Amino acid sequence: MKKLILFLLEAESPGTARNILKLKNMLSDLNTQDICDIFNELRVDKIIKIFRILPKAVAADVFAHIDSEHQQILVQALSDDEIGELMSRLFVDDAVDFIEEMPANVVKRVLMNVSQEKRTEINRILQYPEDSAGSIMTTEYVDLSEDINVRKAFYIIRSTGVTKETIYNCYVIREDRLLVGVVSAKALMLANSNDRIGDIMDASPVFAHTTDDREAVADKFRKYGLLAMPVVDTEQRLVGIITVDDIIEVIVEESTEDMEKMGALTPSDDPYLKTGIIRLAKNRIVWLMILMLSATISAGIIATYEESLAILPILVAFIPMLMDSAGNAGCQSSTLIIRGMAVGEIRLRDFFRVLWREIRVGTLCGLALSLVNLVRIYLMYGQNIMLALTVTLSLFCTILMAKTLGGLLPILAKRVKLDPALMAAPLITTMCDAACLMIYFSMAKMILGL
Amino acid sequence: MKKLILFLLEAESPGTARNILKLKNMLSDLNTQDICDIFNELRVDKIIKIFRILPKAVAADVFAHIDSEHQQILVQALSDDEIGELMSRLFVDDAVDFIEEMPANVVKRVLMNVSQEKRTEINRILQYPEDSAGSIMTTEYVDLSEDINVRKAFYIIRSTGVTKETIYNCYVIREDRLLVGVVSAKALMLANSNDRIGDIMDASPVFAHTTDDREAVADKFRKYGLLAMPVVDTEQRLVGIITVDDIIEVIVEESTEDMEKMGALTPSDDPYLKTGIIRLAKNRIVWLMILMLSATISAGIIATYEESLAILPILVAFIPMLMDSAGNAGCQSSTLIIRGMAVGEIRLRDFFRVLWREIRVGTLCGLALSLVNLVRIYLMYGQNIMLALTVTLSLFCTILMAKTLGGLLPILAKRVKLDPALMAAPLITTMCDAACLMIYFSMAKMILGL
Repeated sequence: MKKLILFLLEAESPGTARNILKLKNMLSDLNTQDICDIFNELRVDKIIKIFRILPKAVAADVFAHIDSEHQQILVQALSDDEIGELMSRLFVDDAVDFIEEMPANVVKRVLMNVSQEKRTEINRILQYPEDSAGSIMTTEYVDLSEDINVRKAFYIIRSTGVTKETIYNCYVIREDRLLVGVVSAKALMLANSNDRIGDIMDASPVFAHTTDDREAVADKFRKYGLLAMPVVDTEQRLVGIITVDDIIEVIVEESTEDMEKMGALTPSDDPYLKTGIIRLAKNRIVWLMILMLSATISAGIIATYEESLAILPILVAFIPMLMDSAGNAGCQSSTLIIRGMAVGEIRLRDFFRVLWREIRVGTLCGLALSLVNLVRIYLMYGQNIMLALTVTLSLFCTILMAKTLGGLLPILAKRVKLDPALMAAPLITTMCDAACLMIYFSMAKMILGL
Repeated sequence: MKKLILFLLEAESPGTARNILKLKNMLSDLNTQDICDIFNELRVDKIIKIFRILPKAVAADVFAHIDSEHQQILVQALSDDEIGELMSRLFVDDAVDFIEEMPANVVKRVLMNVSQEKRTEINRILQYPEDSAGSIMTTEYVDLSEDINVRKAFYIIRSTGVTKETIYNCYVIREDRLLVGVVSAKALMLANSNDRIGDIMDASPVFAHTTDDREAVADKFRKYGLLAMPVVDTEQRLVGIITVDDIIEVIVEESTEDMEKMGALTPSDDPYLKTGIIRLAKNRIVWLMILMLSATISAGIIATYEESLAILPILVAFIPMLMDSAGNAGCQSSTLIIRGMAVGEIRLRDFFRVLWREIRVGTLCGLALSLVNLVRIYLMYGQNIMLALTVTLSLFCTILMAKTLGGLLPILAKRVKLDPALMAAPLITTMCDAACLMIYFSMAKMILGL
């Protein structure tokens, strides 16, 4: 079907009435997302043509789901009236997402063609801090009064529901917009026509404040299995709702952000292939620089023990193995703890439980690795048992140290309100490296008497 | 409220009728998840007591949401009849999740007390491969015939909907359970009573096959913004549905799995604090061992250049800095590419685009780091310009090499059907280490003539 449309668009001369009608019929069989896919594969002039053929409601829906590059191209090609029509049909949260990505001149033109009321709503949401519940909510919800009955509620939903982002949860408010309950479409459908909304609603709904962190909101969605959540201001007045599709994007974005921090990157929302080279380099240089400079500590330690190394140069050969094992062992622990805290399984008060667990796990891992290592070095390096012992004992202590550091530093970071994900592989590795070298050279001094 | 209940339970002597009534009233004000929270804080004997006080439907819902440890305790304390009652009220997907975690003797007792029909359904879902769409679906959905009208549809929903996992999407099937469409509750509510279902349904619904990978299903949910998706067998017959709450868990679990692989861990579904020490150690030792043994390559390279190091021992001091920078640079690239592939932004065919981008980004990062490094070493190490040049040029080449390897190896891994997440920090670091040492010593030979 897609292939056919693409063929039609590319091959035939445009504009003949027959073709447009044919195209219209074909498009009407596709769902929004498939039309978006077609948009992403087409040349600019074709996009505008198809966009204008689409029914207005579908066009708005498609517009909300294509990427910001295509949004900008389209908006710049549309007339003022067309922009006004489009904006009136966009949900407020989609309108905000769109506006946030546009350059200033486009934003100005768009806002000039929006109704006063919608402009106020958009501006209000734009003012909420990034990553707050307010910034991802929308204002198209169904509100009901507690004194009406189910029949009246259905009437309201039928007359206004088509423009709402969800009708599966309706919010029960008093005169001053005070949120007093929520009633699901399921409850409405299973109730009797004459039941009073106030009697069938859930009077203690789970809600968020506009300033709540969006990650905390996502946790509540998961915990309570919600499809939508009301958002209230400081006086408990309903100002918007958040729907589950936006929460899924929050969860995906927060995971990406954590992974990027754990990979020593400055987090960024932009897709890799659409980010400029300079920007990509910038996102990486900060951490590379910090970590490179921290590595001078290791250099200092080695310089101190230069004489020992001169006596027994083979000691240098084990440095990469020890450093890598330290980094990997620490990285394993910190990954588990960082993720455990992100999904709410590990809390600050678990500090000592984690410590005790990592000590035991570290001992087991250390023993296993040391044993293999002892045999290997003994056999490979001229059956020098003292050398083998030095390296092996260093390895054991290094792993124990790395496991403990890797397990505890993310918790400590959270304790002082830093993001635990910063305490991941790269920083842990640098710290473990220095500690590992200290352990190694002290052992060499003690056992080999250097 | 929670505090109060806990107080009641712990402080007063149990069993008096007044207390139980009081407790019952208090519990009825709480939602399922809050009751689950209370369960997690209580002693075993108290859990059973509260569980029996709860209304049967709430009890089943609570049971589905507590962890498997508590589920086992409860089931072992319940009578056969109580188990039968509980199982009849559990959704099939929750029943399957529960059974999968139980030891064999408990499973046997549970299945003995389940109706023949439900047992068949449970067994069928248990047979689908792990991580398949079939393994996460449930069989409680509303199905409609295309020839009935909206009024009849509402009647069916009202009479059967209370036991269904969702009523917001109803599935339209023919006699042989062939899936022909889906109709949303929204469409039903906005339609006229006499409209025919076949006329208002979406006749090309997005669906999954039972054997589809659950990650691919999650991608479809995100793409199309779905609340539920029908699952069909090879003959397009409807066998179940997947709901969005389960998909959120899939997304969270898949992210966790990727992070664990990227952290050199054998992935595991069990929460950190609830996994045994031996098991935790096992999940870590495999990769630690592989990486430790691979690090012998680096040792071999160093051993080859032992003489050069003996002439200029200060060279050793820069090894940690070079190795760490290599690891970090490679890790940054691989993190971006792995995540980009996981969320579908980067595909196999982008190989050369990624290559070209990483070369440019690597050059920029390499230049920035080298410049700082050149000045630093020149000033700190007796203004030895040749030494500074050796280290700096090595750093530049190392970063360029690490960026390219880090960017391309995940794509190559995917090409040969390996999980890209394996090509993350730990493995990349080990490879970059060896390459970095080769570069360093070659430079030293060339520039310093060692």
